Amino acid sequence: MADAKNTVLFPYETLKKLSMDAFQKFGFTEKEADIIQDVLLTSDLFGIQSHGMQRMVRYHKGITNGLIKIDAKPEIVKETPISAVIDGHDGMGQLLGHKAMEMAIEKAKKSGVGIVSVRNSNHYGIAGYYAKMASDQGLIGFSCTNSEAIMVPVYARKAMLGSNPIAWTVPADPVDFFFDCSTTVVTRGKLEMYNKMGKATPDGWAVNKDGVPSTDAAEVLGNISRHEGGGILPLGGATEVLGGHKGYGNGMIAELFSSILSQGGTSNKCMVGGKSNICHGFMAINPEFFGDPAEIKKHFSQFLQELREAPKAQGQDRIYTHGEKEHESVAKVKAEGIPVLNGTMLEVQDLCNELGLDFKSYFGDYVPEAPATMFKGNY
Amino acid sequence: MADAKNTVLFPYETLKKLSMDAFQKFGFTEKEADIIQDVLLTSDLFGIQSHGMQRMVRYHKGITNGLIKIDAKPEIVKETPISAVIDGHDGMGQLLGHKAMEMAIEKAKKSGVGIVSVRNSNHYGIAGYYAKMASDQGLIGFSCTNSEAIMVPVYARKAMLGSNPIAWTVPADPVDFFFDCSTTVVTRGKLEMYNKMGKATPDGWAVNKDGVPSTDAAEVLGNISRHEGGGILPLGGATEVLGGHKGYGNGMIAELFSSILSQGGTSNKCMVGGKSNICHGFMAINPEFFGDPAEIKKHFSQFLQELREAPKAQGQDRIYTHGEKEHESVAKVKAEGIPVLNGTMLEVQDLCNELGLDFKSYFGDYVPEAPATMFKGNY
Ligand SMILES: NC(=O)c1ccc[n+]([C@@H]2O[C@H](COP(=O)([O-])OP(=O)(O)OC[C@H]3O[C@@H](n4cnc5c(N)ncnc54)[C@H](O)[C@@H]3O)[C@@H](O)[C@H]2O)c1
Ligand SMILES: NC(=O)c1ccc[n+]([C@@H]2O[C@H](COP(=O)([O-])OP(=O)(O)OC[C@H]3O[C@@H](n4cnc5c(N)ncnc54)[C@H](O)[C@@H]3O)[C@@H](O)[C@H]2O)c1
Repeated sequence: MADAKNTVLFPYETLKKLSMDAFQKFGFTEKEADIIQDVLLTSDLFGIQSHGMQRMVRYHKGITNGLIKIDAKPEIVKETPISAVIDGHDGMGQLLGHKAMEMAIEKAKKSGVGIVSVRNSNHYGIAGYYAKMASDQGLIGFSCTNSEAIMVPVYARKAMLGSNPIAWTVPADPVDFFFDCSTTVVTRGKLEMYNKMGKATPDGWAVNKDGVPSTDAAEVLGNISRHEGGGILPLGGATEVLGGHKGYGNGMIAELFSSILSQGGTSNKCMVGGKSNICHGFMAINPEFFGDPAEIKKHFSQFLQELREAPKAQGQDRIYTHGEKEHESVAKVKAEGIPVLNGTMLEVQDLCNELGLDFKSYFGDYVPEAPATMFKGNY
Repeated sequence: MADAKNTVLFPYETLKKLSMDAFQKFGFTEKEADIIQDVLLTSDLFGIQSHGMQRMVRYHKGITNGLIKIDAKPEIVKETPISAVIDGHDGMGQLLGHKAMEMAIEKAKKSGVGIVSVRNSNHYGIAGYYAKMASDQGLIGFSCTNSEAIMVPVYARKAMLGSNPIAWTVPADPVDFFFDCSTTVVTRGKLEMYNKMGKATPDGWAVNKDGVPSTDAAEVLGNISRHEGGGILPLGGATEVLGGHKGYGNGMIAELFSSILSQGGTSNKCMVGGKSNICHGFMAINPEFFGDPAEIKKHFSQFLQELREAPKAQGQDRIYTHGEKEHESVAKVKAEGIPVLNGTMLEVQDLCNELGLDFKSYFGDYVPEAPATMFKGNY
């Protein structure tokens, strides 16, 4: 995904400082800003460029247009030893996600499982961040979210589900299993990056407003933002031949744990009527309730090793297990800097001006420039 | 999938009688035979032809070659209010699955969630059967299994995971949500049916032993049975471009709940050393622990209705929600009869001869004939 021509590298610490300052300017406390920047920059550290700095400006827009309420107090509407439902009252997604996952972890430690469903939230970043909170403590982690409708179900021409990512994490040696992705072929974030790079997308990712395949990211994003139809395909594509009904079904499971159990807004109600209406789901499972956690971890780690050592396809020299890329990215990015698209830095510059932060004090003499074809609407 | 030329219709009651008789001849009690035939024929009733009568002979082979032990006693090796691990001691998959799901349901009713992981089992049929046991009682159901390695991970040329189906069911009106499918593009069962029909498979389903795409079901099945390499692709295909790493990751989640939590054999150890080594996972979640179950059901049913009513793609007049096809199939198949491939009936005839059952007493003057190209090895 990195595109040297359109990308600039900045030290992690620089972007962290900018984020801490910006989120406090947005009105969050230092502690809150710290959680939010950690979700965002973990995304960049993991190499998930689409969900890090790239999203900064969307959160600011969300606050200024009233979608995100900085002083919202989460309300626990139902709680049992294994479950909870939280009404986020339009609070910041990262803060609600962090709190909900902490509750799920607490419950799993005591009762074996914790499942928490959150309604009336906002975009919470990468699903894997929350799942990872559990695996960092030796538990199995799960998180999912719905999002503004962008997935066009099999045989439909209107987006009805979000890109609805599901993340699962499991403790393992030498690298935890970290499986975190959308239930669509690709994320909206990837389309946004192709748009910012002015490049055509691969075939099989999206359809235009007539339900016809399109490789034009700007067109697809434009259609979506104007609510004209079309969107991204479920994993497996537009028909049953390669299993589009399976990706569509996985998207439904993300709805189940987010919008259904919490009785919140389903993806087709997100971003409607001046509300985000986004919902999330969280689960932690304690392996102690199934056997010796160290033995289970060892057993799983061995399978992961066998996968990595399996015979490679012609022309390939490596098989990945989920989480390896993210693990290796952290070391690389901390050493070399976080790659940010010039198009994103242009947005960051505007944001600094608006917030009264001195862009130069973070980024020196760097002057951002974006490709001419970039769609600059409010997607 | 139905192929009139190669297919014959028989009344549900005829096939049920044959199955009851055959499974009792195999050595099961009447009660056990009843559970086993119900799993098999539910598959045929649901229109999942690949996992009904089509599999009968495989179970017989499993018993005669010692993979399936008819008198195995399941052992509960760990149990808590929300969890259990069962060692199946090579018992029949359907019986172990039925017992494990009953335990998960009991736990969910009392404690909110029940998760049961089973090791040392055998092929258990359709994952959805067990999940449906929970939704039939107003709970959310989940089941998954691993199976003999047949999924070739992204960048590999050797199958390392099974087709590893995952099923989720959720109570809904007018039709329960029933989402049950393999994490591969298609199942081995579908390849077996293309083999029996002597037809080329669509592109993008499988690779041959060199990791090269193949549409020849007989070749692919032959390679697999001779352990020569190749197999079926994960949902999303052979590379990352269309998300093969996502299908591969979903397959890993089936391993997690089946072979990892139970510390049983992972897919690459299934059917090795004269043991099936198959593992299953089961979960039931009680919606009462999240809110009023009737309200949650209503909320979900409304979303399903909105999906069905969404604007259709060009040339399409219906959007399905998961479970509708199965629901409609039951009525049709009960009225018209269960379609069985001639190739399968040939196997059933041989089986009757072997068991001392009178084929004619069930099927009258019908004489089965199979296509000449059919691969008849022990796949
Ligand atoms: N908040 C939201 O609304 C929202 C919506 C969609 C996606 N997201 C986030 O966007 C991020 C990216 O999603 P995506 O769909 O682009 O994911 P992706 O396609 O980049 O897949 C990433 C996952 O696949 C693994 N992986 C990658 N290549 C692999 C290989 N060859 N073999 C094995 N594993 C491999 C990674 O380790 C990781 O677990 C996720 O973090 C997701 O949570 C958020
Ligand atoms: N025991 C084993 O080892 C094993 C292995 C693999 C699969 N299986 C079973 O095989 C069966 C078939 O698996 P499969 O991968 O071929 O499934 P499939 O591709 O037939 O998909 C079936 C699922 O998708 C839904 N569906 C179909 N078309 C749809 C559409 N257009 N829109 C929305 N939903 C749609 C169905 O309602 C069902 O939930 C499953 O029951 C599975 O459990 C068992």
